[in-house]
Amino acid sequence: MTLTFIIDILGTVAFTISGVLTAMRKGLDPFGILIIGFVTAVGGGTLRDVLIDANIAWMRDLTYLYVIIGSAVVAVVLRKKLSYVRRSLFLFDTIGIALYTVVGVEKGISAGFPPLICIALGTMSACFGGVLRDILCNEIPIIFRKEIYATACILGGIAYFLLLKTPLLVDWVVVISGAIVITVRLLAVTFNLSFPSIYNEDENVKL
Amino acid sequence: MTLTFIIDILGTVAFTISGVLTAMRKGLDPFGILIIGFVTAVGGGTLRDVLIDANIAWMRDLTYLYVIIGSAVVAVVLRKKLSYVRRSLFLFDTIGIALYTVVGVEKGISAGFPPLICIALGTMSACFGGVLRDILCNEIPIIFRKEIYATACILGGIAYFLLLKTPLLVDWVVVISGAIVITVRLLAVTFNLSFPSIYNEDENVKL
Amino acid sequence: MTLTFIIDILGTVAFTISGVLTAMRKGLDPFGILIIGFVTAVGGGTLRDVLIDANIAWMRDLTYLYVIIGSAVVAVVLRKKLSYVRRSLFLFDTIGIALYTVVGVEKGISAGFPPLICIALGTMSACFGGVLRDILCNEIPIIFRKEIYATACILGGIAYFLLLKTPLLVDWVVVISGAIVITVRLLAVTFNLSFPSIYNEDENVKL
Repeated sequence: MTLTFIIDILGTVAFTISGVLTAMRKGLDPFGILIIGFVTAVGGGTLRDVLIDANIAWMRDLTYLYVIIGSAVVAVVLRKKLSYVRRSLFLFDTIGIALYTVVGVEKGISAGFPPLICIALGTMSACFGGVLRDILCNEIPIIFRKEIYATACILGGIAYFLLLKTPLLVDWVVVISGAIVITVRLLAVTFNLSFPSIYNEDENVKL
Repeated sequence: MTLTFIIDILGTVAFTISGVLTAMRKGLDPFGILIIGFVTAVGGGTLRDVLIDANIAWMRDLTYLYVIIGSAVVAVVLRKKLSYVRRSLFLFDTIGIALYTVVGVEKGISAGFPPLICIALGTMSACFGGVLRDILCNEIPIIFRKEIYATACILGGIAYFLLLKTPLLVDWVVVISGAIVITVRLLAVTFNLSFPSIYNEDENVKL
Repeated sequence: MTLTFIIDILGTVAFTISGVLTAMRKGLDPFGILIIGFVTAVGGGTLRDVLIDANIAWMRDLTYLYVIIGSAVVAVVLRKKLSYVRRSLFLFDTIGIALYTVVGVEKGISAGFPPLICIALGTMSACFGGVLRDILCNEIPIIFRKEIYATACILGGIAYFLLLKTPLLVDWVVVISGAIVITVRLLAVTFNLSFPSIYNEDENVKL
C-alpha cells in the first residue's frame, strides 16, 4: 500500500463527506445523498484517469466504493457532531483538494507528463469533483466564488516540483505540498485574502 | 441483433423524445431541439463507454444517429399528439432510465466488472443524459428534484443481480429489472412517495 | 506543421480570449481568469480526443499550454483595447467555433469515421468549451440562447463534405467551411435571424 494510495483514499473520504454535507443541506433523500457523495469523490479522479488514459481507479478497486459508502453512512450518522465543527463543509473540501492535487500530480508524473501538464492535471482532478457537486446541487460552482481555490492547487503543484529538486524524500515532498494547498486556502479564507479582480468598474469596460 | 441492442435503441428513442420535449418547451429552434435530443440520448451511453474504455456505441454504428434524427423529427411532428399524453416528458424519461440502467449493467458485466460497479455504471449511464439535458436547458437537474429517480435505477440494478441467481432466463432478468425501475418511479410519483430528507429543520443544523 | 495544427492553435487563442473576457466580466481573480481561459480552450478538443480515443492534444504537446497562458496574459493586458472592439467576446467565440468545427471534422475523418459522425464530432468539439465556460461562470449556456450557434457548426460541417466532392484542394475546403461557420453566425446575429421556435404559445401545448 503506497503513500499515494493512502492519500487517495483519505481524499475520497474528505470529498464524500463534503458531498454528503452539501446534499443534506439541500434536503436530498438518503440515496441522493449517497450519489452526490459518490460523484464528488470520484469526479476528479475519473477525469484524471480518462485524461491520462489509465484505468479508472474506483472501477478497478472496490475499496473506493466501500470507503465512499462507509464515509457517507458515518457522515449522515454524525451529522450533528459535524455541525459543531464550524465550516465543516469548507474543511473537508479543503482537505479533499489538497490530497487530490498531490495524487493528480503524482499520477501525471508516473504517466510521464511534463511538470506543467502535471500541475494542470492535479488542479483539474482536485477541483472537478467539487464543481460537479455544486452543479448537481444547483449551487454556484465553488471555483467561481471569490475565494482562492484552484489557485491553492496550482501553488501546491508548483511547490511539489520545486521541492523535488531539494534533497527531501519524496514522501516529505508529498506531505509538504499537500500542507501548502491547505495552508494557502485556510489563510486566504481566514484573512479574507483574494487576488484583486482585474476588471475595474471605473474603467467602464464594456466587454 | 441482441436483446441488449434492441433495448439500447429503444432507450435512445425514449431519451431523444424527452430531450426534444424539453427543448421545445424552452422555445429552441429546430437545430437546437435536435442537439438537445442528441445529447440526452447519447450522454449516458458515452459516459458508460468512456468509463469501461469501450468503443463509443453511437460513433461506431450509424443506427443510433439515424434513430435519433428520426425520433426527433417524429416527436416534433407529433408534438400536439404527445401533448395529449399527460406528463409525456416524465414517461419517456422514465422509460429511458429503465432501459439504460439495464444496458449499463449488462455492458459492465460483459467488461468483467463486479456487481457493485455494474450497478453504479448502470445508474450513472441512465441518469447522465437527463442531467446534461437539464443543465443545457437551464433546468434544475432532475436528479436533484425531490423524487425517487436514481434510486429507481439502483434498485433495478440490485434486482438484476438478485434475479440472476434465480433459474430465470437472462432475457427475463433484463425485462423484469427494467420493469422494476419503471414501476418504482411510477409508484413514487403517483403516490408522491419519497424518502424522508435526513436534514431536519428542527435540529437547526448549521452545516 | 500542418494547416490543421495551425487552425487548432488559432482556435485555442480565440477560445482562451473568449474565456478570459467572460471571466474578467465576472470579476474573477488572475488565476480564475487563467483557468476559465484554459477550460474554454481545451474543453472541446479534450471531449473530441476522448470520443475518438486519441491522445489528448494539449497533454502531449506543451505548445497548447504556452499558447493559452500567453493569450490569457495578452488578453488581460489589452483588455481596454479589446473593449473597443464591440462584442469582442462574440467575435472570439465565433472564430473559435469555426476553427474547432473544422479541426473536429478533420480529426474525425483521420480516425476513419463516416461524415455524419464527423459533423457531430466537429459540432460538439466546437461548442463544448463555450458550454463549460458558461456553466462555470454561471451564465446561461450560449448554446441555449436564442441565436444560431451550433447550427452554424453543423452547416459548416455539411459544407466541408460537399466541398470535398468538388475539385477544390483540401486546404481550400478547410478555409471555406470555416468561413461558412463564421458567416452564418455573423449574418444570424447581425440580421437577428433565427429559426422559428417550434413551440407555439397559441397551440397551448402543455408538455
